[in-house]
Amino acid sequence: MLDTPKANRLHIAIFGRRNAGKSSLINALTGQDAALVSPMPGTTTDPVFKAMELLPIGPVVFIDTAGIDDQGELGELRVERTLRVMDRTDLALLVVSPPAGDLSMEREWLEGLKGRGIPVVGVCNKVDVGGMDLGGLEGELGIRFVPVSARTGEGIEFLKEAIQEAVPEGWERDTIVGDLLSPGQVVLLVAPQDIQAPKGRLILPQVQVMRDLLDHRCVGVMATAGELGVSLEFFRRGGGYPDLVITDSQVFHIVKEKLPPEVPLTSFSILMARYKGDLKTLVDGARAVMSLKDGDRVLIAEACTHHPLKGDIGREKLPQVIREMSGAELGFDVVAGNDFPRELRGYSLVVHCGGCMLNRKHMMSRIMRARSHGVPMTNYGVLLALRSGILDRAVGMLLPSG
Amino acid sequence: MLDTPKANRLHIAIFGRRNAGKSSLINALTGQDAALVSPMPGTTTDPVFKAMELLPIGPVVFIDTAGIDDQGELGELRVERTLRVMDRTDLALLVVSPPAGDLSMEREWLEGLKGRGIPVVGVCNKVDVGGMDLGGLEGELGIRFVPVSARTGEGIEFLKEAIQEAVPEGWERDTIVGDLLSPGQVVLLVAPQDIQAPKGRLILPQVQVMRDLLDHRCVGVMATAGELGVSLEFFRRGGGYPDLVITDSQVFHIVKEKLPPEVPLTSFSILMARYKGDLKTLVDGARAVMSLKDGDRVLIAEACTHHPLKGDIGREKLPQVIREMSGAELGFDVVAGNDFPRELRGYSLVVHCGGCMLNRKHMMSRIMRARSHGVPMTNYGVLLALRSGILDRAVGMLLPSG
Repeated sequence: MLDTPKANRLHIAIFGRRNAGKSSLINALTGQDAALVSPMPGTTTDPVFKAMELLPIGPVVFIDTAGIDDQGELGELRVERTLRVMDRTDLALLVVSPPAGDLSMEREWLEGLKGRGIPVVGVCNKVDVGGMDLGGLEGELGIRFVPVSARTGEGIEFLKEAIQEAVPEGWERDTIVGDLLSPGQVVLLVAPQDIQAPKGRLILPQVQVMRDLLDHRCVGVMATAGELGVSLEFFRRGGGYPDLVITDSQVFHIVKEKLPPEVPLTSFSILMARYKGDLKTLVDGARAVMSLKDGDRVLIAEACTHHPLKGDIGREKLPQVIREMSGAELGFDVVAGNDFPRELRGYSLVVHCGGCMLNRKHMMSRIMRARSHGVPMTNYGVLLALRSGILDRAVGMLLPSG
Repeated sequence: MLDTPKANRLHIAIFGRRNAGKSSLINALTGQDAALVSPMPGTTTDPVFKAMELLPIGPVVFIDTAGIDDQGELGELRVERTLRVMDRTDLALLVVSPPAGDLSMEREWLEGLKGRGIPVVGVCNKVDVGGMDLGGLEGELGIRFVPVSARTGEGIEFLKEAIQEAVPEGWERDTIVGDLLSPGQVVLLVAPQDIQAPKGRLILPQVQVMRDLLDHRCVGVMATAGELGVSLEFFRRGGGYPDLVITDSQVFHIVKEKLPPEVPLTSFSILMARYKGDLKTLVDGARAVMSLKDGDRVLIAEACTHHPLKGDIGREKLPQVIREMSGAELGFDVVAGNDFPRELRGYSLVVHCGGCMLNRKHMMSRIMRARSHGVPMTNYGVLLALRSGILDRAVGMLLPSG
């Protein structure tokens, strides 16, 4: 995967007094040992910009703001440094850890952030230590606090959920495939011969992918599976293979047969799963089908509230597929539209539709909820890719390691 | 231009007694000397299928049904031959010429055609000879008759208009560019770098053209003008040039510079003008701008009824362009939506919008009306192509000769 330019990363500033646990919170969120962590107050003395992956939210820059609290710093200098950080902040974490004591510093930060319209997520760290009155803290500062322990990992998934919900508009992932490519690369798009769109149209993912290629200065070559031979011959004469092949899932096997294993190959539905949600979570969720046991309950969630048809995919076909794959006797609930449950902990698996009617932010908040509740979640396209044996090849280039 | 397969041509059967002038009517409609014309009754003795271009309607097959009237033929045989013809008829012309006499044969044909739901256009031929009571004929048979003279050409444009209006649904031209190509050919589509469609979308003509390429088993390569060099290098390595290049008009000059003159090059708007209307009429209409004189009136017709904006193309920009091109003092009327006038004869030119909201049948009926009234007609895209000097190259491969 190519690097996301720093300017395109969500900048998350972490405000909190010395030793509130800001650096170890970054480590807990990213699973990386990114900041120098020390129990001595003020180890980090300057704002530090750290480009990292905050999974599953995406590429971010953490701004570790240690050293801008009111200890040992002249008032004016401190204010100026704080302002400089806030100017570059898209979302802020306000970290408090026991003992809370005087909250005037936190109140000042909060005021500055709110004045700039920057969303703030309150984090009450070190809950494993105890000694903090969460309700009192929330009452005093007027925002919600997520209780976590950066040390034990407790509450970290809930914090990610809260961060995801606070991500401002316009900071959504807005590329489907262009981030995997360099300008001038040539991509082959394969449609089934029986094009499943009304006369004169293409299905939306084909249009979206082509537009994304053009936006990223790539060249898109489009053909149906029937012209696959002609297309590949065209590439071969040009001296090689496409830099990437994206195919309709229906003809994945035909396309796979014609491509050497080193040519990157994926499907429109896998790319859309990555674009609309978190591919890693959805892939793990699909694999969790194999571990379902008798008596487990599965939630099937559809974004559209369409009148169920005979042979409806959510109500009939998918339950059948999941029963066959798992070999287990399962119970199914189907929800549609906005009825996605607040509480998912009674389920062993959530299977969502592709979510073409939901934006990424909405779909991600559902995925984050499943993660917070420890429930595997997948979607129709990823599950069907697993079942037809194409998942490994189709996600190969999209996930860091299988 | 490749041949349109016979099965995809509109089959127009011509019913009429011997010597009603069926064969000479075909000649007058097509401008070709297609049938053996003779003043002897019954020269044509068997139904003959003639694949021809009926301009501007498109490729048709005329079924010349001479010899199936009631003279010299056993009743049963005649009925069977008539039925065989009607089974293959999409639209019928019922030709009567003076003296009308007994109309029982015509009534029998009409009944058979109507029973099959085949649209019928009545033609009263030989009006130059006179001696026919048109009103009486229409009263007797209950359909409208278009008075024509196949010999002098009188009324032939009105007859074409009536045929166009009677063309049944589903017989519209349904290919944008595929009829110009062979399966396996590779076409380059060029978009401007500043893509004029909402995020994640392509403009409709790009989608329609790509779909048409796939439907005709061609390969579409799409890039922006910025990646033109990369794309052409890709073709060059493959041993040549694209079989056709279709570009956005805005970057036509950039694309033209990079292509040798023998590479077919056109624009999306010219292809859509051809798809939605009759390109030849629209090109002739654009050239007629240069002949406008002081005091002439121009009709500007828009399919949409949008609220006019400042700098509105129909109300401000086009009148300005037409004044500059013609150098004449002109009067302009602007109509929108369904207000296209029944009577066009007061105008020296009609300029229509691209008609993306009209189907071909609707647009063609407007073009046919302008032709019937002897008024040149063009559309925005074709006129602007003429003005920017790209028209000749862009229509070169699409019209039989300049």
